[in-house]
Amino acid sequence: MSAFDPHCSVPIALGERSYAIRIGNRLLADAAAYQAVPSGGQALIVTNTTVAPLYADKLAGALQSRHASVQTLVLPDGEKYKTWETLNLIFDQLLGQGADRKTTLYALGGGVVGDMTGFAAACYMRGVPFVQVPTTLLAQVDSSVGGKTAINHPLGKNMIGAFYQPLAVVCDLDALRTLPARELSAGLAEVIKYGPIADMAFFAWLEAHVDALRACDTKALAHAVQRSCEIKAEVVGQDEREAGLRAILNFGHTFGHAIEAGMGYGTWLHGEGVGAGMVMAAELSHALGLVDAAFVQRLRRLIERAGLPTRGAVIDSADNAGRYLQLMRVDKKAEGGEIRFVVIDGPGRAVVRRAPDELVRQVIEKCCV
Amino acid sequence: MSAFDPHCSVPIALGERSYAIRIGNRLLADAAAYQAVPSGGQALIVTNTTVAPLYADKLAGALQSRHASVQTLVLPDGEKYKTWETLNLIFDQLLGQGADRKTTLYALGGGVVGDMTGFAAACYMRGVPFVQVPTTLLAQVDSSVGGKTAINHPLGKNMIGAFYQPLAVVCDLDALRTLPARELSAGLAEVIKYGPIADMAFFAWLEAHVDALRACDTKALAHAVQRSCEIKAEVVGQDEREAGLRAILNFGHTFGHAIEAGMGYGTWLHGEGVGAGMVMAAELSHALGLVDAAFVQRLRRLIERAGLPTRGAVIDSADNAGRYLQLMRVDKKAEGGEIRFVVIDGPGRAVVRRAPDELVRQVIEKCCV
Repeated sequence: MSAFDPHCSVPIALGERSYAIRIGNRLLADAAAYQAVPSGGQALIVTNTTVAPLYADKLAGALQSRHASVQTLVLPDGEKYKTWETLNLIFDQLLGQGADRKTTLYALGGGVVGDMTGFAAACYMRGVPFVQVPTTLLAQVDSSVGGKTAINHPLGKNMIGAFYQPLAVVCDLDALRTLPARELSAGLAEVIKYGPIADMAFFAWLEAHVDALRACDTKALAHAVQRSCEIKAEVVGQDEREAGLRAILNFGHTFGHAIEAGMGYGTWLHGEGVGAGMVMAAELSHALGLVDAAFVQRLRRLIERAGLPTRGAVIDSADNAGRYLQLMRVDKKAEGGEIRFVVIDGPGRAVVRRAPDELVRQVIEKCCV
Repeated sequence: MSAFDPHCSVPIALGERSYAIRIGNRLLADAAAYQAVPSGGQALIVTNTTVAPLYADKLAGALQSRHASVQTLVLPDGEKYKTWETLNLIFDQLLGQGADRKTTLYALGGGVVGDMTGFAAACYMRGVPFVQVPTTLLAQVDSSVGGKTAINHPLGKNMIGAFYQPLAVVCDLDALRTLPARELSAGLAEVIKYGPIADMAFFAWLEAHVDALRACDTKALAHAVQRSCEIKAEVVGQDEREAGLRAILNFGHTFGHAIEAGMGYGTWLHGEGVGAGMVMAAELSHALGLVDAAFVQRLRRLIERAGLPTRGAVIDSADNAGRYLQLMRVDKKAEGGEIRFVVIDGPGRAVVRRAPDELVRQVIEKCCV
């Protein structure tokens, strides 16, 4: 393989639920990419109105030889559709086509499609096999890996869901070429995240390659996706059900979720919320005396170069910090009404801890002007 | 303990998901019965309009010392409410009260409450602890044990759900005294089931004690609940996720589900469908040459003495058998459109197998006149 035809496989070690993430170009339409899926039975491809015209036929073609029938269900596109009503469309389709327990679901799209399809697979007849075919950078480096599935509730993001592992994840780097620049930047937020929490050498590599990544350089993308998946695989392998360590993968997400919810889902992309949220979490780490101002500035600079917001949104003009705190108290990491933040405990290392409301208020005021 | 104050504990061995079923009288209001639940955190009792006035305060009283707060949510009563809409009431309540991942759900009621509360616990924040406090015979001997949770879909019963184990099951035999006779009989269907599939000595004991059971004799109920739970525990311990063996617990359910769905959920009680369904499955076993006519007659007689229907309902006057077959093809045991029946392969032993449509039609015609 040449340097421009990179292929690799990242194993996720979870005992009998282990699987591999395949990363490369020209994978999506390659029947061999799906060899981990038992053949026979029906297949249902779940995708959305944006992705379907680009890739649904290609994927269906690759699956023809493996399944007795291949159906496609096209959902509306966007975070605001990550609801029970949309999830029910998947169940209606499955029951309508007489899908049994051997039916395999394929999630073809970004994080929303992956989270909903995975949750549908977890629940349909109490569990059917599924495969992630992520077509966004965010999904390839984060949401399709590790088995977290969910839908949103009007009172909180990802509140209803399951830990449910796919049989395989197939990351086709070519799919990233059709991604709008804004979506690519949003995906970079989840890539950047892995630096401060786990690997500052990777962070330095990102500083050197962020322009190449935004220009969709395949070699750079291949490395970014692979290293991100490796770090995530290591964390998830140690703590599949988020009893402790896994929470560090939510660096920037506590503030970010508040922005997403406060602005109304879909106004800010998830990755945009995480971008600004990482700056806020880094400022909080600094306010707690854990990192110096230079580290915060270095992180802010990379987030900015990735094309992401570095300031939080004003989500309530009367009491902005109060509204953030209110929304963050329903975060899944909160316990007994106390918010638990992922903070940077020195570059390359994250911990989960509480922080005084007053300090959090100051950070919000500083970051949202 | 006297003969009229029976207490026992049946262990469910599932590795790190192991738990115990406590069986006895005066248990529900006894704080000590819930010692397996970690103390601290909030509690939410989920119950229904029928059970709440009888037992909700008693349970809440027993939990006061264990939890920081104890809330109660009262759902409408009945199988027709085992829907997504009702499930969402639980999520609304949990998010409204700021419930976190340490919140414990208590299912206080029959199979519908237990299945929905368990599924809510499986999904809320991707999993919170829960406890089954079954108040019907059916729930005590079957649905609260083994971790099957679900809601119905308009196109099929229990189609959306999860395998999710409780921390504990607390079976208070006194609760059965407030059960309407029809509900007690429905519960006996699931008790009788354990005979033909696993233990003909227990079947003979039931023949001798069915009148005492219908009269709510505590000692007889204690033995029936204990032996039923023991058999279920043994089967579930071998096959938690129904890869094979566990399916035998669905003896009578394939026909029974078709009756329930065909008549409209709630017209026939689940146990009534299982009662008639067991006769039909036994007739099919006989038609397949697996048991003799005397066995079928013996089973029919006990089901009749338990106060249950022994004939299937006519669910479609134009093509009754055709409608049964159509509904049975969406059974979760079906594969590739072929129905798989639990049949009796000699008294005390069950197997899962296919049967020719023509033979199944003959059984339906014979059993629904």
